[in-house]
Amino acid sequence: MVRETKIPGATIERIALYLRSLEELLDKGVPLISSDKLASLCGVNSAQVRKDLSYFGEFGVRGLGYEIHDLLKAIRGILALDRPWRLGIVGVGNMGTALIRHEKFFKRGYRFVAAFDSDPEKIGKKLVHNLIIQPMSEIKKVAGALKIEIGVITTPSSQAQAVADMLVDAGIRSILNFSPIQVRPPKGKGCLVENVDFTVKLDNLAYHLSKIH
Amino acid sequence: MVRETKIPGATIERIALYLRSLEELLDKGVPLISSDKLASLCGVNSAQVRKDLSYFGEFGVRGLGYEIHDLLKAIRGILALDRPWRLGIVGVGNMGTALIRHEKFFKRGYRFVAAFDSDPEKIGKKLVHNLIIQPMSEIKKVAGALKIEIGVITTPSSQAQAVADMLVDAGIRSILNFSPIQVRPPKGKGCLVENVDFTVKLDNLAYHLSKIH
Repeated sequence: MVRETKIPGATIERIALYLRSLEELLDKGVPLISSDKLASLCGVNSAQVRKDLSYFGEFGVRGLGYEIHDLLKAIRGILALDRPWRLGIVGVGNMGTALIRHEKFFKRGYRFVAAFDSDPEKIGKKLVHNLIIQPMSEIKKVAGALKIEIGVITTPSSQAQAVADMLVDAGIRSILNFSPIQVRPPKGKGCLVENVDFTVKLDNLAYHLSKIH
Repeated sequence: MVRETKIPGATIERIALYLRSLEELLDKGVPLISSDKLASLCGVNSAQVRKDLSYFGEFGVRGLGYEIHDLLKAIRGILALDRPWRLGIVGVGNMGTALIRHEKFFKRGYRFVAAFDSDPEKIGKKLVHNLIIQPMSEIKKVAGALKIEIGVITTPSSQAQAVADMLVDAGIRSILNFSPIQVRPPKGKGCLVENVDFTVKLDNLAYHLSKIH
């Protein structure tokens, strides 16, 4: 019933957005939703929604829409969001501190289990969630001991690529990079890097403004 | 030649990604690119690339691809990225400070021209770019005087919606919200809000991990 093909990253990101809208609807007691309505909530077209959701099996009820409860369960299972994930963060400056404190990560099952920095003044400092800042030289040892699954980079640009290489060397296969430079994983290691670029959203806002002025 | 229809937000975000890849290619001296190659660089399918770029006119050269220089110029013009945009940020905690210092905003033409906070201890404090933290009660006055175009919210969840309302009341029509709650603009004011959710990217990384373990 459910296809086991690998789903493209762009599809997964759209599905992650559908998931958040579907959760809101279910919280409001809505049992069913049409692809048209879901498409309009998420700013995509309905053919795209139907195509994306077809990866998860047959949840559409002809003329009625999707059964939200079952669809959510299938999405969470296939996206592997039905269990927590263990994050290690490198770079405890303003951005790193903001992310560690950000309530959304915990709420969505993402747990910071380790924090690293290169500044000797910060080593040993206590953070929320009982985190203690450790030196970057400990990444490999700690990553193994604490089973870090996803590395988060919040260092300055100058350190970001070297930190990515350290994370990959420590066996980490998923990296979320907040530094201003694009980080590239070594080839052939099976590591996926997502580079966060806040300015992409600003481009959309700027376009919106240029249309209403 | 160029259509003046309003382009959907999801399309604009993909185009903003194409723009960044095209700039990198042009920097490397590449004059032309096929839709297949651009699609693969950006993780979308090539039919989508062709459809998205068709909004900007006819830049494809049959059998050769797109002329990058001309395509970039058209995209920048239509997206209104050929001039700087003026940002006001509300909430100068860790996240706000990190964004103000983030080199990517400046590089892409986004200028922080004002910063606000509700904490009396922070008022008057000097930041980079000659910014001085001002009280939130001054938003309306300052937004008009400094011609703030885009509001950036980096307050805690509890303040975010009230801040969004203040920004809209001050005449601001584009908001980028980093707080953990979804902020909604008052209806009928023509304000567009982009809510930043870092965990969407983490969902893609978690899915990737679940496939390689």
